[in-house]
Amino acid sequence: MFAKRAARLKSSLIRDILKLAQRPGVISFAGGLPNEAAMPALDLADIPPTCRQYGPSEGEPALREAIAGELRRLGIDCAEEQVLVTSGSQQGLDLLAKLFIDEGTPVAVESPTYLAALQVFELFGAALHGLPADEAGPDARAAAELLRRQRPALCYLIPTFQNPAGHCYDAATREALRTALAESNSVLIEDEPYRELVYDAAERRPICAGLSERWAYLGSFSKTGIPGLRIGFLAASKELSQPLTRLKQATDLHTNRIGQYWALRALRAADREAQLEGLRDFYRQRRDAMAASLERHLGGRGDRLADWQLPAGGLFFWIRLRRARDTGELLQRALARDLAFMPGDPFFSGEPDASYLRLNFSHATAEQIDAGLATLAELLREK
Amino acid sequence: MFAKRAARLKSSLIRDILKLAQRPGVISFAGGLPNEAAMPALDLADIPPTCRQYGPSEGEPALREAIAGELRRLGIDCAEEQVLVTSGSQQGLDLLAKLFIDEGTPVAVESPTYLAALQVFELFGAALHGLPADEAGPDARAAAELLRRQRPALCYLIPTFQNPAGHCYDAATREALRTALAESNSVLIEDEPYRELVYDAAERRPICAGLSERWAYLGSFSKTGIPGLRIGFLAASKELSQPLTRLKQATDLHTNRIGQYWALRALRAADREAQLEGLRDFYRQRRDAMAASLERHLGGRGDRLADWQLPAGGLFFWIRLRRARDTGELLQRALARDLAFMPGDPFFSGEPDASYLRLNFSHATAEQIDAGLATLAELLREK
Repeated sequence: MFAKRAARLKSSLIRDILKLAQRPGVISFAGGLPNEAAMPALDLADIPPTCRQYGPSEGEPALREAIAGELRRLGIDCAEEQVLVTSGSQQGLDLLAKLFIDEGTPVAVESPTYLAALQVFELFGAALHGLPADEAGPDARAAAELLRRQRPALCYLIPTFQNPAGHCYDAATREALRTALAESNSVLIEDEPYRELVYDAAERRPICAGLSERWAYLGSFSKTGIPGLRIGFLAASKELSQPLTRLKQATDLHTNRIGQYWALRALRAADREAQLEGLRDFYRQRRDAMAASLERHLGGRGDRLADWQLPAGGLFFWIRLRRARDTGELLQRALARDLAFMPGDPFFSGEPDASYLRLNFSHATAEQIDAGLATLAELLREK
Repeated sequence: MFAKRAARLKSSLIRDILKLAQRPGVISFAGGLPNEAAMPALDLADIPPTCRQYGPSEGEPALREAIAGELRRLGIDCAEEQVLVTSGSQQGLDLLAKLFIDEGTPVAVESPTYLAALQVFELFGAALHGLPADEAGPDARAAAELLRRQRPALCYLIPTFQNPAGHCYDAATREALRTALAESNSVLIEDEPYRELVYDAAERRPICAGLSERWAYLGSFSKTGIPGLRIGFLAASKELSQPLTRLKQATDLHTNRIGQYWALRALRAADREAQLEGLRDFYRQRRDAMAASLERHLGGRGDRLADWQLPAGGLFFWIRLRRARDTGELLQRALARDLAFMPGDPFFSGEPDASYLRLNFSHATAEQIDAGLATLAELLREK
């Protein structure tokens, strides 16, 4: 009855857990929710009435130009015509999957990587190839070899505060990957939802900066703005603009204009940089609270339970348990004690490493973080 | 480089023409734009701050329940769990195409039918089968035969104020199609963007009302509400809810919550029926103005240029020229004289009938309608 792709349709574990985690009293490290206390106000009173009518599929011209301007400041060669405003950056992944992926099309991904990207690539039938990586990001030489050997249509990377692993590629890795991609026929998808959530100095020059063709860059207003408005964008090299716009037309005609108006105003706000600094201070404190509580409850003194790195940005710690275990079963026991986290397994494209958990630090308070990690440590010591 | 479906990617002629038609001074009968003078105000000042956060993929529970209630009043067996709030009803078509259409999957459509439905079905590789029809709608007996013979996975119908043809199926046709669909294995997609834009008494009982499985119903807040908010919905029989929700997750996580809040308030408004009546009065006047001007310029007195029926609802006249001609060439000459309309050809799934034009009556004023049709008559008499 259904199309073949329906058999590859998985539920997002994140969203299923989020539902459970929304029970009152649950301390949740599971989602990637921005904190409402740090979110801008929903000031929509002065939206012009012209925003009521249908709009262009590509998005509002002024917003597209403002986004292109931001990307040019990052070194990306981007004109207004290359920007498509999307219903969140997730829609950018859907459009790119539609444009590039047939059943069996090879696609290179970091492993682990963003769960919902795996979901949409697999839905369209991609043959996924995991890029060899260590704690600092992909091994550029091995990545170049994989690009040559497998000739993937797409190479999907989250170089800046990777989800879930939290690392940020250094300058040499970025440059080596840029060169390898320029010499390949693969299209780079560079996904950067977290780039503005930076807490310590870190290399953030996009890999797209310096590529002249075969690149797509995904950005979001959900992490620094208002996720409920569903505004993201997909910028791409010139040869991809027309087919992506046509796909957008057929997908949902255009992105909601009220959110686009809000996003334009946010980009143009005189105090934008001060607002971002405030947001960074807010999340840096949460990160530091989680780092301290992790060390207190899971670290040190001979019976250390896990290892981790301090992420320089983003929303997550990626912790490696000293003893691999069934993290799904661990989650069940945690939920019974009103604690939620993300098991690491579903982030892997191939055979999962069952030693990892992803812990979000943006949503819980410092007190909740400490109490939750104390519970987690107890659960890890139980068996 | 691209997926195979990219070769089937057509631009929407409507949207290309709309761009040209937006030049100042152009009288446009081309789009299907609601009239801003008849549109509700954009009163978003009191949206609760909770709408800022990410929301459920299915949509806001209260809105889903309100929509399910409306559908139950139409006789459709629908619970809240069966409603998915979408980014316009176009997204419902995208989700259904993803769920059902592989390359070569047979899909039954009216011919002519909604252009952007053809676009998305073809993108996913559907083998389209046009349903035999006359001016009153599909021939139910021939449709039953086609369902038996071709076993289409989907049967896409716009029974109420069909786009582009404007007709509304009578009760006997609806009942016969309902029976034929119940006896088939095809899934009905019933698309009803125009059902509330009713100007004369007309049968409007959905075909879904009475079907217990294999049905999907598409609705929109764009024709009676605010299209720029991009809020539509897809209700479906129980067995389809879970895969459609998972597809929605992978497509764009969820629909913007500000628009959903607005839609819920509109559905609950105490004066909703009075507002709809006002809208119907507004558009009925435009329809009648176009009917009078059509008769004046293209009708009567021996040299009649075209034939048409008075649509009992919706936004379009579907006129049949007495002499078939290249309507694309006619459009070029019209645009040179600041007039736009939609050639009928692209609405056909198979061999197009080059005698048709679709004329929208909702956007231009009565004076513009008369002037535009005078121009059209001159162009038709030129050669």
